Amino acid sequence: MADPAFTLIYWPMLQGRGEFVRLLFEATGTAYLDLARQPVEQGGGVEAILRYTQGHVPGPTPFAAPILLHERRVIAQMPNIVSHLAPRLGLAPKDETGRVWANQLQLTIGDVVDEVHDTHHPLGSGFVYEDHLQAAKIRAQFFREHRMRRWLRYFEAAIGDAGWLVGDGCTSADLSYFQLVEGLAFAFPRAFADVRGDVPRSLALRDRIAERLADYLASPRRLPFNRQGIFRDYPELDGPAG
Amino acid sequence: MADPAFTLIYWPMLQGRGEFVRLLFEATGTAYLDLARQPVEQGGGVEAILRYTQGHVPGPTPFAAPILLHERRVIAQMPNIVSHLAPRLGLAPKDETGRVWANQLQLTIGDVVDEVHDTHHPLGSGFVYEDHLQAAKIRAQFFREHRMRRWLRYFEAAIGDAGWLVGDGCTSADLSYFQLVEGLAFAFPRAFADVRGDVPRSLALRDRIAERLADYLASPRRLPFNRQGIFRDYPELDGPAG
Repeated sequence: MADPAFTLIYWPMLQGRGEFVRLLFEATGTAYLDLARQPVEQGGGVEAILRYTQGHVPGPTPFAAPILLHERRVIAQMPNIVSHLAPRLGLAPKDETGRVWANQLQLTIGDVVDEVHDTHHPLGSGFVYEDHLQAAKIRAQFFREHRMRRWLRYFEAAIGDAGWLVGDGCTSADLSYFQLVEGLAFAFPRAFADVRGDVPRSLALRDRIAERLADYLASPRRLPFNRQGIFRDYPELDGPAG
Repeated sequence: MADPAFTLIYWPMLQGRGEFVRLLFEATGTAYLDLARQPVEQGGGVEAILRYTQGHVPGPTPFAAPILLHERRVIAQMPNIVSHLAPRLGLAPKDETGRVWANQLQLTIGDVVDEVHDTHHPLGSGFVYEDHLQAAKIRAQFFREHRMRRWLRYFEAAIGDAGWLVGDGCTSADLSYFQLVEGLAFAFPRAFADVRGDVPRSLALRDRIAERLADYLASPRRLPFNRQGIFRDYPELDGPAG
């Protein structure tokens, strides 16, 4: 088989920000090489990431994964990769106004992802979780009580009557929002249960995307959520049962 | 005078993420209305932000400022505004590869800004600084010792022989990097002094941009750095003198 046109490079043991890229391929049946999940002797493993972030390859050096290789381009930063891929995979709005709005939503989803990461790593990425525990409890409580509901209601209000975030069809923003909703429901099941009733359109969108992705979600290509990723099911960060 | 084509809406008392937008206008002599800094009776003040973020205006609702109004479009998210404005103001690379790279750098600058914000607000945005103090000291130390030098060296290595981040001329990424360097030097003067020697190209770029912006920087339009913004000069977060 010829090499696919697209190569994704991302940490092989977790979904993380790479999953937002992976979903674009999986939802459209686009062939891609998931390089770091290949054996090391085939150029895979964490070493694949380091070759790029440590500048051993010509071209602009990415600060971090995810990294997309496409037509000799090396592209990093999740929202940057998404806005590069979406029009090529039929997942972008047709007009510029829609594209700007989709990018705005993508960046906002990225902000939520950052906040979720900080619920378990409030002191910076250089400590193990246990060192963060007290600060993490405070930050997670603030996130659950003040931020999560606000974010979800924000996206809920943005979903139009057709059931999508931008215009009348599914775009990259919907795929990313699916991942965000799934992640929040996984990481904060009790707090999420309290918000469910406020966001029926979000749940319907989530279900529609899950249907489209059913084969992928049931496959070994879908890494499970785990405690190395962004969304982690630490019960002590999910607050008391409602 | 006719209304300018561009309107910026941002918190009137601080530079924040709005400053990255303002610099695009100021560096190119582009007329813009800085709406929230106008008197309330002329549609200004914080109320101008709330009209948009609370959805009182038709069109996609921004989650937060900065907000750009341009040709009936309402555009939010700093990197999204920058990629909309840069080609219109002569600040974008000419080819798509360069534009993707400039956007990647812009997003990376945004990540640093988020990390700097978290040095004084590690527990979330809902607490006053004093409540964060112990966690802030830990996070700031991690930032100073592990992140700041790494970020600055990363951008330093990206600056080409022509002295710019992307290609042979000044782009929006350079203006934003100027602001980042200025902000880090303000917030962490002792730690910054330790890194200076490693980043000569960054300092030269900073000086060149400062020259281009000299009129603006000396004007009352340039808000001073202060302790409401992202970059704050808390000595206790800057570590011991080297």
